[in-house]
Amino acid sequence: MGNQTVVFANPPVILSSYSVVGPKEGQGPLGQTFNNIWKDGLHGEKSWEVAEGKMLLEAMQGAVKDSQVPQDEIDYILAGDLLNQIISSSFAARQMALPFIGLYGACSTMALSMALGSMLIDGGFARHILAGVSSHHDTAERQFRAPTEQGTQRAMSAQWTVTGAGSVVIGRSETGTGPRITAVTIGRVVDYAETDINNMGAAMAPAVADTILNHFHDLQRQVSDYDLIISGDLGAVGLALAIEVLKQSGIDMGTSFTDCGVMIFDASQDVHAGASGCGCSSVVFAGDIMNRIKAGELKRVLLVGSGALHSSTSSLQGESIPGIGHAVVIEA
Amino acid sequence: MGNQTVVFANPPVILSSYSVVGPKEGQGPLGQTFNNIWKDGLHGEKSWEVAEGKMLLEAMQGAVKDSQVPQDEIDYILAGDLLNQIISSSFAARQMALPFIGLYGACSTMALSMALGSMLIDGGFARHILAGVSSHHDTAERQFRAPTEQGTQRAMSAQWTVTGAGSVVIGRSETGTGPRITAVTIGRVVDYAETDINNMGAAMAPAVADTILNHFHDLQRQVSDYDLIISGDLGAVGLALAIEVLKQSGIDMGTSFTDCGVMIFDASQDVHAGASGCGCSSVVFAGDIMNRIKAGELKRVLLVGSGALHSSTSSLQGESIPGIGHAVVIEA
Repeated sequence: MGNQTVVFANPPVILSSYSVVGPKEGQGPLGQTFNNIWKDGLHGEKSWEVAEGKMLLEAMQGAVKDSQVPQDEIDYILAGDLLNQIISSSFAARQMALPFIGLYGACSTMALSMALGSMLIDGGFARHILAGVSSHHDTAERQFRAPTEQGTQRAMSAQWTVTGAGSVVIGRSETGTGPRITAVTIGRVVDYAETDINNMGAAMAPAVADTILNHFHDLQRQVSDYDLIISGDLGAVGLALAIEVLKQSGIDMGTSFTDCGVMIFDASQDVHAGASGCGCSSVVFAGDIMNRIKAGELKRVLLVGSGALHSSTSSLQGESIPGIGHAVVIEA
Repeated sequence: MGNQTVVFANPPVILSSYSVVGPKEGQGPLGQTFNNIWKDGLHGEKSWEVAEGKMLLEAMQGAVKDSQVPQDEIDYILAGDLLNQIISSSFAARQMALPFIGLYGACSTMALSMALGSMLIDGGFARHILAGVSSHHDTAERQFRAPTEQGTQRAMSAQWTVTGAGSVVIGRSETGTGPRITAVTIGRVVDYAETDINNMGAAMAPAVADTILNHFHDLQRQVSDYDLIISGDLGAVGLALAIEVLKQSGIDMGTSFTDCGVMIFDASQDVHAGASGCGCSSVVFAGDIMNRIKAGELKRVLLVGSGALHSSTSSLQGESIPGIGHAVVIEA
């Protein structure tokens, strides 16, 4: 095992966070924690894809406004989403008119953008960065599976893509008070040969376990060093598998390990294995987790963004689904 | 105009570069500069998509081998490609088993990966990084336009996607001799409302001009400060438009401005407006440009990766095609 973890000399500070979600997310157990809940997924636009781009833009503008940082002091946007050619991000970046770094890490993209953005700040290349991601249930269904109008029955292991966009503004250590990003672990692509496109959780679980193991190894830490270890988004099936893989590596994750995709909906919402989509971990982080860190309830959190690097093309060609996990340590 | 340009305190060094191309590229005027020329685009694989991933892997492995850097001293792969969910990159990264940062910048991705990789090195977060991108004529045609088997007539403003993969290993300033990356300018998304999907050059030209203008402004430089300014890949139509946009901003680009998409094929190869695809600028840079810098012919080069952030979905929905340009300064 090499050293995959970066510890920041001057931990960047999260100056603001902002979340926008769809109605189903607003009705879920975390509904009170979101900044803005849309009444429907189209929001007056002519397509879900256009609506998703607008949702991301709204989250980015909200984060910038709440940070009180003048927009011309933000040096980079780091963003990504699930749509082909990450169009939600590029269209949002077009409106923001700031230097744009486009990322793709599937549902791990929020953690990746925060990790990379923190490196750009601690490295002295940026004063502030804006990180943001989005996903949309209907755009994702249409692109990856079947149009929602078709009413295809979903597998019990399937996850429900969140309609949501989350964004944060991160600044240099001395620029403000707030939760700090103290370390990051960029993950490797891990593939246990899962081919079931209705079971992304299983495809991602080994990668999340790999990143957690490497993170613990690099920093000589253990589960008890964190108040919360939260993946995003394995769902119930993937979370159970990640716990099992870690157990086989000698690590008992105990009760402080959960998943954004498990938290955002409740059992009555008929989402089967839970939630997924870049938007999920971004809005859970921007809302609930940030609130609990600021309230002093959580002192040190490990957010492990988890991505299924799934493509319809490669899956139709018989390829398995590689997974990846990127970890970010946030401290009060 | 803000300051978009980063100047490195300890300019990272390009320790190696490696290029793999298809037969048409091998028959072009730069044929002698590539490390490996495949006899056909399938290379014994069962699909063009699998072949593209293998081509990128071959380029990455070639760059690592030539750099003589042990693989466990490479801290990150930064890679991207044109395929949905950047599968060529994630499948190549799966084989390399190194921490993976997935990028999407369309044809600008080679410049973006080198720019970001250099920041990670100069910031002290990496000892070495591996940057690499790929494109494949037949995978791109199938995904963005029409299957090549269909024999659709191409517009005269269309560019021919290069089948090629290029990769570089970049290390800390003190780790070796070779061309150095001294400054980078991350571009903004610029959109002049071009909607013609057969004219990506026109969609990208304003973004390239914007990045060049900002770069000159930030460093107080002018055209004559560079032996070569090379975009990748505007093609003939886009290059002429970029020259025109810059002229209207008071800058005469003279004779030292050209484009990778203009250089890689010659008029007899029936490519219409020239070449495009992430692979194009990566193999022209990894081969011809690196050779000429090492030979002392070029002392300071400005590579401006240019991306058309085009998606079939957004274009079918009537959206215009945003462009982006990222610039990297390479010095002998």
